[in-house]
Amino acid sequence: MTTAEPGQLLALKDELAQLKPEDIVTEMGRSNAARRAVMFRLLDKDVAVAVFELLSPTLARDLTHELQGEELLDLVEELSPDDRVALLDELPAGVVNRILHGLSPQQRRATSVLMGFAEGSVGRRTNPAYVPVQPDLPCGEVMDRIAERGENAETIYALPVVGPTRGLLGMLDLREALMAAPDTLVRDIMRDERGLPATMDEEEAARELLAGKLAATGVVDSEGRLIGLLTVDDAVTIIAEATEEDVVRAGGAEPLRQPYLSVPIQRLVRARFVWLLVLALSATLTVSVLDVFEEELSTVVALALFIPLLTGTGGNTGAQAATTVTRALAVGEVQGRDVARVAIRELRVGLTMGLLLGAIAFVPTMLFTDDRLALVLSVSLVAVCTLSATVGGAMPLIARAVRVDPAVFSAPFISTFCDATGLLIYFITAKIVLGI
Amino acid sequence: MTTAEPGQLLALKDELAQLKPEDIVTEMGRSNAARRAVMFRLLDKDVAVAVFELLSPTLARDLTHELQGEELLDLVEELSPDDRVALLDELPAGVVNRILHGLSPQQRRATSVLMGFAEGSVGRRTNPAYVPVQPDLPCGEVMDRIAERGENAETIYALPVVGPTRGLLGMLDLREALMAAPDTLVRDIMRDERGLPATMDEEEAARELLAGKLAATGVVDSEGRLIGLLTVDDAVTIIAEATEEDVVRAGGAEPLRQPYLSVPIQRLVRARFVWLLVLALSATLTVSVLDVFEEELSTVVALALFIPLLTGTGGNTGAQAATTVTRALAVGEVQGRDVARVAIRELRVGLTMGLLLGAIAFVPTMLFTDDRLALVLSVSLVAVCTLSATVGGAMPLIARAVRVDPAVFSAPFISTFCDATGLLIYFITAKIVLGI
Repeated sequence: MTTAEPGQLLALKDELAQLKPEDIVTEMGRSNAARRAVMFRLLDKDVAVAVFELLSPTLARDLTHELQGEELLDLVEELSPDDRVALLDELPAGVVNRILHGLSPQQRRATSVLMGFAEGSVGRRTNPAYVPVQPDLPCGEVMDRIAERGENAETIYALPVVGPTRGLLGMLDLREALMAAPDTLVRDIMRDERGLPATMDEEEAARELLAGKLAATGVVDSEGRLIGLLTVDDAVTIIAEATEEDVVRAGGAEPLRQPYLSVPIQRLVRARFVWLLVLALSATLTVSVLDVFEEELSTVVALALFIPLLTGTGGNTGAQAATTVTRALAVGEVQGRDVARVAIRELRVGLTMGLLLGAIAFVPTMLFTDDRLALVLSVSLVAVCTLSATVGGAMPLIARAVRVDPAVFSAPFISTFCDATGLLIYFITAKIVLGI
Repeated sequence: MTTAEPGQLLALKDELAQLKPEDIVTEMGRSNAARRAVMFRLLDKDVAVAVFELLSPTLARDLTHELQGEELLDLVEELSPDDRVALLDELPAGVVNRILHGLSPQQRRATSVLMGFAEGSVGRRTNPAYVPVQPDLPCGEVMDRIAERGENAETIYALPVVGPTRGLLGMLDLREALMAAPDTLVRDIMRDERGLPATMDEEEAARELLAGKLAATGVVDSEGRLIGLLTVDDAVTIIAEATEEDVVRAGGAEPLRQPYLSVPIQRLVRARFVWLLVLALSATLTVSVLDVFEEELSTVVALALFIPLLTGTGGNTGAQAATTVTRALAVGEVQGRDVARVAIRELRVGLTMGLLLGAIAFVPTMLFTDDRLALVLSVSLVAVCTLSATVGGAMPLIARAVRVDPAVFSAPFISTFCDATGLLIYFITAKIVLGI
């Protein structure tokens, strides 16, 4: 804890009391660890829990290191089971045991059921605090059920409809229950819904929930029994995390999972250096290709002039195709079986762009250098654009087929591939056209 | 309409009747325009409206071209005002006039109020169908208000609390009203909320709503009077569209706004070619740089070997920094005033990575070529990584400051900048070290 005058602390406390939880989180993301802990201790208990639930997992973990045992347990008890799982995931095993030990038996059960599911599965994100209703309940009595059990439920706007053995039969939109005649049975207005399997990929589950426009949906075990609910709030968080991962990985870095300004320099380096090294190592392939053609290069040094232009254009064409297809794959617009259809589409796009670019490049290059070099460049542009677009379009689908994250796999592979094959095409064309 | 056997149509109708609206939309996204219209006509009316609201704006527009006047008007009448605005935006003015003319006066008013706001502002996304409550209403009577006006409201889970002149005073979470004692006044449990200004950027507004975990929030005019609600559903759609735009533009293409497989080849070319051409034209800067150093190149042809490796590494380092900072900017973790802080952080990251990479490259290059060329490469890597990371990190903030989309501006600028300055650094180092 930093030393600060009591007066300053009071001023900070007053300042924090004016802010909404999300703004406090933003402020904490702009501060270092010690100041974050001071800020946190100055919050009212209710606000503190709200703030803690909004913190990124890494900031939340850092904060628990600063808090004392008793303080920590009080906080953890207040968290909802799915947020507790997210926190425990980040802590060392010793601390986790100590915390689990301190929870009430009911809290411990809810938490450890969720912890049994694999990371990345929707089971981990499931909230076991819900209000179940029976299919033969009259709508007029739904509010009584909510009054009994709704206090701690994550949401009351979507209620799971369960059978005798906790099997999920459907979801009830509270709005429809409120609008229906009081003697209408739940079964007559519920949405047929067998629930998402707990082992389902969390991102896929989140997209499915958001497409359906319900406040929550049920998550079930392998026998169709209800485990808990996935809420829209959680789905939004899942999509935001997945998007950050995709966006950042497409740029060749690892996601930080905490606000940028709060990340130490060495963690930024770690998040990027392996990627940069892998890319640089694969770029040595271009060194080998150029080494093979060193004789041709020394004969016509002007060939070197267009190397960055050509590899750059190949890389850009490949990246355009890969980004578009990766995105289409992420949102479910294309599937693995579409690989041939996608490759043919991209071949046509690449060929069209190559012909346009080759035509545009020809005259200025002819004036700038000579006819034959201009021909080499234009022909190479056509071939490079066609090949790069086709490979760039097919690669994300191939990555998905071999179960690698398309965003990770595509970018470095495509850039290396386009650079090396681009150079090969260029020099082979040069050898033929220039007769060297 | 394609000619098809009545039997086939019946089979298709049965098949469609089994699917949820979101799955029908997926199927339509995989079909061509004629088949889409056939599919749409086979749907039940309720399902048809649900499907239409889920279609991307471009597919929705295409579909309206296929539908007859009467059919179209029936459909448009059923849409919620914000979806109607989105559709009218895409249609030619003549068709829009005809449709607006056919609407009831009330529908026309709601629609044209929304159309007065600029594209990209949250006003456009606002839904004017809401259930207002007064601050001195007892919670026990909230359900009566909903029974009166809730039928057509977009949501009843968050209700705007309005004063006598429609000024927004707060938002009421239905759950809290249902859980409160019946004589509690709305003012005592509402969340203080002055609403989002209608002119606010829609993406910013959507993030603010999603951070607050309410089902909807109020959108107000310049005098604080309620215009309508922004719902979580709409916020999710806004974020999804903005994300697609960012992701695809970072890859150097324009967003398609319709499913990939349904886009004609020439539209794919149009979405990418201008970008590719701009990038290729700016890459001619590298041709000029190389042209300046052609004499040095012909003296030491081996210098050409490392050109793609060096420009590639500079581009990658710059892209890593730009992607991370663009993302941090999009989610509000850094702001314009942080530009110096970000640049210094990135300078340190780039320097560290450059030193590591330069050290790793030195020995193999020495063995592969000679001592002095290895020194040129290592020194250039340090300088290029430092410069690229600094520029890559600062550029998104500068783009934001001059009000250009960081995702658009950063990528091409950084890649060109890194390539050209990388080559400059490389050849200047070579001139000094090799004495040529």
